[in-house]
Amino acid sequence: MKSLNPGIITLTTDFGTEDSYVGVMKGVILTIRPDATIVDISHQVKPGAILDAAIMIRGVYSFFPKGTVHVVVVDPGVGSERRPVLITAGGHFFVGPDNGTFQPIIEAHPENEIIHLKNDRFFLPKPSSTFHGRDLFAPVAAHLLSGIVPLEMGSPIYDPKHLEIPSVHRQGTSLHGQVVHIDHFGNLITNIHSSEMDSFSKTEDLVIEVGGLSVRGVKQTYSDVPEGDFLALMGSSDFLEIAVNSGRASDRFKLETGHVKELELPVEIHPSIINSP
Amino acid sequence: MKSLNPGIITLTTDFGTEDSYVGVMKGVILTIRPDATIVDISHQVKPGAILDAAIMIRGVYSFFPKGTVHVVVVDPGVGSERRPVLITAGGHFFVGPDNGTFQPIIEAHPENEIIHLKNDRFFLPKPSSTFHGRDLFAPVAAHLLSGIVPLEMGSPIYDPKHLEIPSVHRQGTSLHGQVVHIDHFGNLITNIHSSEMDSFSKTEDLVIEVGGLSVRGVKQTYSDVPEGDFLALMGSSDFLEIAVNSGRASDRFKLETGHVKELELPVEIHPSIINSP
Amino acid sequence: MKSLNPGIITLTTDFGTEDSYVGVMKGVILTIRPDATIVDISHQVKPGAILDAAIMIRGVYSFFPKGTVHVVVVDPGVGSERRPVLITAGGHFFVGPDNGTFQPIIEAHPENEIIHLKNDRFFLPKPSSTFHGRDLFAPVAAHLLSGIVPLEMGSPIYDPKHLEIPSVHRQGTSLHGQVVHIDHFGNLITNIHSSEMDSFSKTEDLVIEVGGLSVRGVKQTYSDVPEGDFLALMGSSDFLEIAVNSGRASDRFKLETGHVKELELPVEIHPSIINSP
Repeated sequence: MKSLNPGIITLTTDFGTEDSYVGVMKGVILTIRPDATIVDISHQVKPGAILDAAIMIRGVYSFFPKGTVHVVVVDPGVGSERRPVLITAGGHFFVGPDNGTFQPIIEAHPENEIIHLKNDRFFLPKPSSTFHGRDLFAPVAAHLLSGIVPLEMGSPIYDPKHLEIPSVHRQGTSLHGQVVHIDHFGNLITNIHSSEMDSFSKTEDLVIEVGGLSVRGVKQTYSDVPEGDFLALMGSSDFLEIAVNSGRASDRFKLETGHVKELELPVEIHPSIINSP
Repeated sequence: MKSLNPGIITLTTDFGTEDSYVGVMKGVILTIRPDATIVDISHQVKPGAILDAAIMIRGVYSFFPKGTVHVVVVDPGVGSERRPVLITAGGHFFVGPDNGTFQPIIEAHPENEIIHLKNDRFFLPKPSSTFHGRDLFAPVAAHLLSGIVPLEMGSPIYDPKHLEIPSVHRQGTSLHGQVVHIDHFGNLITNIHSSEMDSFSKTEDLVIEVGGLSVRGVKQTYSDVPEGDFLALMGSSDFLEIAVNSGRASDRFKLETGHVKELELPVEIHPSIINSP
Repeated sequence: MKSLNPGIITLTTDFGTEDSYVGVMKGVILTIRPDATIVDISHQVKPGAILDAAIMIRGVYSFFPKGTVHVVVVDPGVGSERRPVLITAGGHFFVGPDNGTFQPIIEAHPENEIIHLKNDRFFLPKPSSTFHGRDLFAPVAAHLLSGIVPLEMGSPIYDPKHLEIPSVHRQGTSLHGQVVHIDHFGNLITNIHSSEMDSFSKTEDLVIEVGGLSVRGVKQTYSDVPEGDFLALMGSSDFLEIAVNSGRASDRFKLETGHVKELELPVEIHPSIINSP
């Protein structure tokens, strides 16, 4: 049972930090593996916002060393029929409810293995119906650090729950996507990846339209425009982002930090129309 | 001075996360024990809410391995006469002000030992009057990891400060308790433990009344009722909880997350009255 | 390349905790040094508030063991001309943008060494223009733990960016300073250090005036006045602080937690005027 695991477990939840829920999960992990390194990604995912958790973990996992165990618990269906799962993909482990959270991971790694967690030897005794983060996912993550192989923990499944992820589509010379997240700085993060921008020859002439706002060109960084001005740029995760230099782009749209409901804020990109005289 | 300590210190405070107070406590600990594993339980306890801290640590400590040091600092009387204490109970250590925070721990473990912390060899030099978390409790916790025995740190006391903890009482066939906490999801957590429900034969027929709201039956999990409906269930810490499936029960009562003032929201449970024709 | 480093990295940013930005930085660090101990100081610095970050790290670093690496990223000019730097001062390392954040550290340690980070061997490949916390500062901090010497990472500079830090001045028998921070408890933290109070012979007779409020005497701790009363005291970092026992002094001035804009709330201290008959 040799393990290549670096001993790291990441936690992403909608549990907040006012209660002791996250602390208790860490206690469970450290009881099994006192040497575990536990890293909080965020516990401020909007309650029940599965899509936001899915987008978050997709952007994070690859910055950790291979063998890291990523526990993601945004679990409005806890205690119902939904299955607890362990996914091996891209050299990482993912543990949480089978509710679509891991779809971007599964899509990105066709060679994935999905285990329906069934072996209660790796759960806390007498699991509750309302806190699988503590009773199932935390202990499973800790046991993975000990080199327990996934197949010992349950049986393979091939029909993970589907999650509708907002897609980008092309219409003529235009690209249509949407805002999927508002970050702490009020930046509007879209689902348009840099790879989809390749079709445009000159990004400095593009027109980006979002909710009645029109911005010209894709800049390098915030300070490329005067303070208070809107700009579009490729963000640090390589997705198109609309921002205000030293300001909050989200204020204009009266949007809170976090998840943006699907199709609330569509984005259109098209080459500028050059009027010939 | 051999220690069975796993090297874990938990921190529970009302210090918030905007300032550097918690970070400074960690610096003090790591200066003494660079190998300590420090776990945040929560720093969002409402300022001065001793009862909330007491309820929180009672629900948390047993999920950590024995030998863990739990530092709990909700300390409105810092610098006054109130004594700094170290409590050994149930195989765990508890460090903080003697203001009632640890009463549930002391009650649950009659074999406890309470030390009035006096030996300033284990404090920072020149302790302040306003930040004993940094100057007394953090260094004491770190020294405990080194296997210093409690009696070296001060002298035993037998009259810890009493804290009035809201109690549950029975009246005829009814059980009377109260809401003591609103969690991050807006669930109303009561002080009615599952063990007190044993007297009721059929939980599915019980009527739970709270602030003019009446709910029938004790369910297993949130999704046992339609989205938006109220329900009662035994929460993950085995206390009765009133919730809304995919919603916030607290919204109805206009209550914020955190501690609920005593007797603000009483709860009554009684068997349903079956009208015979 | 022997290192005296205890393996500790602290993080202070304005990134918030709703997004995965901080988690990603930790992933980068742990990929290079899986054994690093990472401590969050705060990620709630107001966006772009360089002065607040400067005041925060000045008050924190010396509570950590020598050799600790302090990463401070409040970086509104990310991707612009501003230089990324590594500073060695007082036996600690400081990593972040050269925007004035480290001025109090540099002032306090005239024997400092400042390196303009240039050697991209210690950066992530293809650094972005918008997230140097992840692409430059996190990997540099991790490589420092491995004992890489600063001069390998860039070249010395001697003209760090100047930051105007609110100063204290004397006028006759009066001392003039200002409120620079509101903490989680609503306490008003000033820039008046205890060392500057030495000129006053009797602190119990002093009159402290702030925004139309007048308080007499410097107390030891909050409970030295009745609940709800204002008081002045020397705070835990040895700066004069105006507080309310069991209340929020900031409420009177309608100020939010965090940084206070310069000169918004001046403080004057003078000996009491004794009226002779």
